[in-house]
Amino acid sequence: METSNPVGRSTSHAINELVGKAFSVLDDGLVRVIDYMGGDDAIVQAARISYGAGTKQVHEDRGLIRYLMRHRHTTPFEMCEIKLHIRVPMDCWRQWIRHRTANVNEYSTRYSEAIDASQITPPDQWRSQSGVNRQGSGAKIQPEDGEILSAREEELQKFSREVYDQRITFGVAREQARKDLPLSTYTEAYWKIDLYNLLHFLSLRMDAHAQYEIRSYATVIGNEIVAKWCPLTWEAFIDYRMQSTSLSRLEIEVIKRVVTGDQVGANEFAQSVNWLESGKDGTKRNRERDECELKLSLLGLAVPWLQETAF
Amino acid sequence: METSNPVGRSTSHAINELVGKAFSVLDDGLVRVIDYMGGDDAIVQAARISYGAGTKQVHEDRGLIRYLMRHRHTTPFEMCEIKLHIRVPMDCWRQWIRHRTANVNEYSTRYSEAIDASQITPPDQWRSQSGVNRQGSGAKIQPEDGEILSAREEELQKFSREVYDQRITFGVAREQARKDLPLSTYTEAYWKIDLYNLLHFLSLRMDAHAQYEIRSYATVIGNEIVAKWCPLTWEAFIDYRMQSTSLSRLEIEVIKRVVTGDQVGANEFAQSVNWLESGKDGTKRNRERDECELKLSLLGLAVPWLQETAF
Amino acid sequence: METSNPVGRSTSHAINELVGKAFSVLDDGLVRVIDYMGGDDAIVQAARISYGAGTKQVHEDRGLIRYLMRHRHTTPFEMCEIKLHIRVPMDCWRQWIRHRTANVNEYSTRYSEAIDASQITPPDQWRSQSGVNRQGSGAKIQPEDGEILSAREEELQKFSREVYDQRITFGVAREQARKDLPLSTYTEAYWKIDLYNLLHFLSLRMDAHAQYEIRSYATVIGNEIVAKWCPLTWEAFIDYRMQSTSLSRLEIEVIKRVVTGDQVGANEFAQSVNWLESGKDGTKRNRERDECELKLSLLGLAVPWLQETAF
Amino acid sequence: METSNPVGRSTSHAINELVGKAFSVLDDGLVRVIDYMGGDDAIVQAARISYGAGTKQVHEDRGLIRYLMRHRHTTPFEMCEIKLHIRVPMDCWRQWIRHRTANVNEYSTRYSEAIDASQITPPDQWRSQSGVNRQGSGAKIQPEDGEILSAREEELQKFSREVYDQRITFGVAREQARKDLPLSTYTEAYWKIDLYNLLHFLSLRMDAHAQYEIRSYATVIGNEIVAKWCPLTWEAFIDYRMQSTSLSRLEIEVIKRVVTGDQVGANEFAQSVNWLESGKDGTKRNRERDECELKLSLLGLAVPWLQETAF
Repeated sequence: METSNPVGRSTSHAINELVGKAFSVLDDGLVRVIDYMGGDDAIVQAARISYGAGTKQVHEDRGLIRYLMRHRHTTPFEMCEIKLHIRVPMDCWRQWIRHRTANVNEYSTRYSEAIDASQITPPDQWRSQSGVNRQGSGAKIQPEDGEILSAREEELQKFSREVYDQRITFGVAREQARKDLPLSTYTEAYWKIDLYNLLHFLSLRMDAHAQYEIRSYATVIGNEIVAKWCPLTWEAFIDYRMQSTSLSRLEIEVIKRVVTGDQVGANEFAQSVNWLESGKDGTKRNRERDECELKLSLLGLAVPWLQETAF
Repeated sequence: METSNPVGRSTSHAINELVGKAFSVLDDGLVRVIDYMGGDDAIVQAARISYGAGTKQVHEDRGLIRYLMRHRHTTPFEMCEIKLHIRVPMDCWRQWIRHRTANVNEYSTRYSEAIDASQITPPDQWRSQSGVNRQGSGAKIQPEDGEILSAREEELQKFSREVYDQRITFGVAREQARKDLPLSTYTEAYWKIDLYNLLHFLSLRMDAHAQYEIRSYATVIGNEIVAKWCPLTWEAFIDYRMQSTSLSRLEIEVIKRVVTGDQVGANEFAQSVNWLESGKDGTKRNRERDECELKLSLLGLAVPWLQETAF
Repeated sequence: METSNPVGRSTSHAINELVGKAFSVLDDGLVRVIDYMGGDDAIVQAARISYGAGTKQVHEDRGLIRYLMRHRHTTPFEMCEIKLHIRVPMDCWRQWIRHRTANVNEYSTRYSEAIDASQITPPDQWRSQSGVNRQGSGAKIQPEDGEILSAREEELQKFSREVYDQRITFGVAREQARKDLPLSTYTEAYWKIDLYNLLHFLSLRMDAHAQYEIRSYATVIGNEIVAKWCPLTWEAFIDYRMQSTSLSRLEIEVIKRVVTGDQVGANEFAQSVNWLESGKDGTKRNRERDECELKLSLLGLAVPWLQETAF
Repeated sequence: METSNPVGRSTSHAINELVGKAFSVLDDGLVRVIDYMGGDDAIVQAARISYGAGTKQVHEDRGLIRYLMRHRHTTPFEMCEIKLHIRVPMDCWRQWIRHRTANVNEYSTRYSEAIDASQITPPDQWRSQSGVNRQGSGAKIQPEDGEILSAREEELQKFSREVYDQRITFGVAREQARKDLPLSTYTEAYWKIDLYNLLHFLSLRMDAHAQYEIRSYATVIGNEIVAKWCPLTWEAFIDYRMQSTSLSRLEIEVIKRVVTGDQVGANEFAQSVNWLESGKDGTKRNRERDECELKLSLLGLAVPWLQETAF
């Protein structure tokens, strides 16, 4: 990270080399840096005006950035801004645009004819409905079914475009001709956002529960762009967001008992918050208890109610 | 407008009667008031805390609301909030959601199967591309072409749903099965917004240049709901926004000359700002001049450069 | 919580009884509910439109609200809105107004004379600068010093008001006369915010690190108002926000080793991330290590690098 | 305006020369450009992705920018961003911060001692309360009174600082010591905002009705910075915002009658909307009528109800 001058425009070799470079995403999508403002140095600069002379000598840059991230001092991260050019299926864009804190200029299918490209799913890329997560995908669909599904998709996308083209030929207004385009149709946009809000977007969309398509974009933006643009911030983001966990009041109570060997107390607490209710097929399903089990496992602790002595 | 008590929840008979009532829009869409906060009285109440005791006797409610609207004192209008339930084609929703200042909960096609309804265009509702406005519609398409277009649309929507249903049957995850749904598919949402931002939405979407579909929703929201919810505000909005016009620096210069009979001066000014450049087919097209002509006409003034003596 | 009808305005006895009631804060401040929209039932209603029919039977209200809070599904909480009347010293308001997602109408000292009231600090309420927290307060100042400080404060506030009144008497414009008012001068405002953003405000301003003055307001809003308005949401907020903790990637690594008795490994890890660097007076101060120690202590775990066998 | 490459970071000589340069405002304030993103070229670039290939040849840059400004196509202007360092009295900052769409890092008087500087009013700069505008200033106060007022101000500011310094000496926490600082105390901030929202800020704060102090800052930002950063946008902003006027439905009705010489009709219309009500001292004051008179005058038209033949 070099800065041209103490009060001036910050620039960085690493990000400068990315400007204009297109990263491919999905079968025909892309992400490309158009412009940026600031970087790790601008975050430090902004934090220091907040904290005044007091902190000047105390922290070095890395320590200060980590402190800001850890304590959710968000405004210094808003001092950085990035503008991306993206090409993305409309279905994925429908999720993307729900993040309201960005500036957007999207390709208009009122002004111009719709982009003649749709996201194509190859036979081996069809995903089954998750059994455990109502909103997610599970294993891949078996290949022979995938062949059928992809063939039908090709047929549908081809037919949709024929209908669109026919409408244009008949002189139908573009704003109406587009009405039956499939959601898989690609669109393009400039998307400009500050670093704080971008990290929030990434924390949600790089998450394993995010849909594969938007996760693919988020992963490229995070790993290929932000990691190079603001390396100290990215490191702190990984440590304090992406690879962190949170413990609820209830989970803290359970863990406190487990680490002192008080398995009985832990079970009693779990019972008191209705995590161990019996149903006809044994203990009832309880999502909050399941999540606590995952965290116990993450910390290398035994689940008290799954121990033999527990019951 | 009645208020239960001076500092309490404001309520209004007119809007209370609308709560829960569905207004039909398009072939299968709807708008319905779920809840609201405030009304004309809440705007006055908020303005009076800003202005303090000073204005208490000076203005009556109507005058104060008109003053606030005229002078773009926007914050008192933000004191009212409304929550609507809407059912809308995804294509229209794509425009709607670009208004970032609302709170939104949309039907999720990851959690549940897509709504089995698409916006259907009858043979007499196909619109031709506007000749003068790159983003608009012109006259209706002739009926015999409309028959062909509607038949093809029905075929496409039917095929799209078959493909969707087949994917679901094959066990494809809902989040992926939806990828080729047509943009005409209906979605539903709760949409909550403050009155200031709602009026901004309406000023853009009730405008004659807005696309017919979203204009249909905006018109219902404006005329059927806001007009009853906040009648004084609505009257001021019509007078100072919807039926107002603006004059640019250049238009003021032209009009000043025209009203004193200085046709020569008006033409000289128009020439000085390049509104009267010659092309090979007479005067070149100039959009800003066209707009000035419309305003002259609105005010009942002759267009100086179209008068015989002008050239 | 009762709802008048399934799609209608939600109302709640508990909050209705609070509407209009002033809660005192500080020596002369207040918080008062003016109006509200929604409640726990509106959150559930909004979540169910997102999730569609799929979730209708699965969750009961409490479970659903807890799930939403735990997984940071924020949009359903935005469906509730509250409007408060507050009276607050300008110094405190300077912090408050930094939360940008609210609607605000503040008393205008351009339109009306400044409110003739300042926050007064009694002799036993002066706080010393914290030794450990650059931005916080520590123990109370001793009473004899407090007497001096309060006497001087009274003198200053009295003189400031005299100067203000003199300016008004001399005919100085209110907008200029106010320029030297002390920050302790009270102002009033209507403040309207959705529940999601209100909870974010409360999580920051009820925190022990928040300044005493704004914490006093936040505590009243949280405990006296939100807890009654949306009791299920409040319970979840306490469990998953206020009394939760987060563990960073580094803290997870340390805890994993500690719980299996691998004190050596825990210390080696701490060393590898520079938490145990030596300075001239023993181990250097390290804020991130300090925070890890607090979390170990919260979970009832020994701090590995403070154990005798550790070195 | 030069661009390094078609998809790359836009730069401009004119603004580059301003980066880091401090513009003085008031007695001890400043505005300084820290960094920027985009410029006129970035607006055009963004508009063209919205409009697609269709508009490429049609408009040149200037025409396109003017079209966007005239028709309130706001999103392309959001593609530019600027970051300023400002030093400003807290009283003025109280107004400034009400613009919620910016990113802000302010000097913290919790972390560091308050800046030892207050805005000083010289004897000839005291303004009297406006007789016509409840929130504005009128003529200057006469010099002998100004001498008295400035002497008292100096005394008050000196005393305030002594009290502050004494508190610090007594060990009072900075967050509490600051509570009686005068609003004239200077603060500093980094303020980052997109061009669309900046122009909105300028349209309100460069207006003749804005308070002198914030108007001084807005004028420097507009005339010295934005005019050089985005010269085509600035020209359009002047023509379509700053030097434009709007005509309400009622004003249009009056003007239409006046320009055709229908003075009687104009007066009848004015009467029908209650602009000409009689009070005990002749026609009652009516603010909306007053504003219409100003617009008639701007356009060089006689006010029909002030003509002899009118009554």
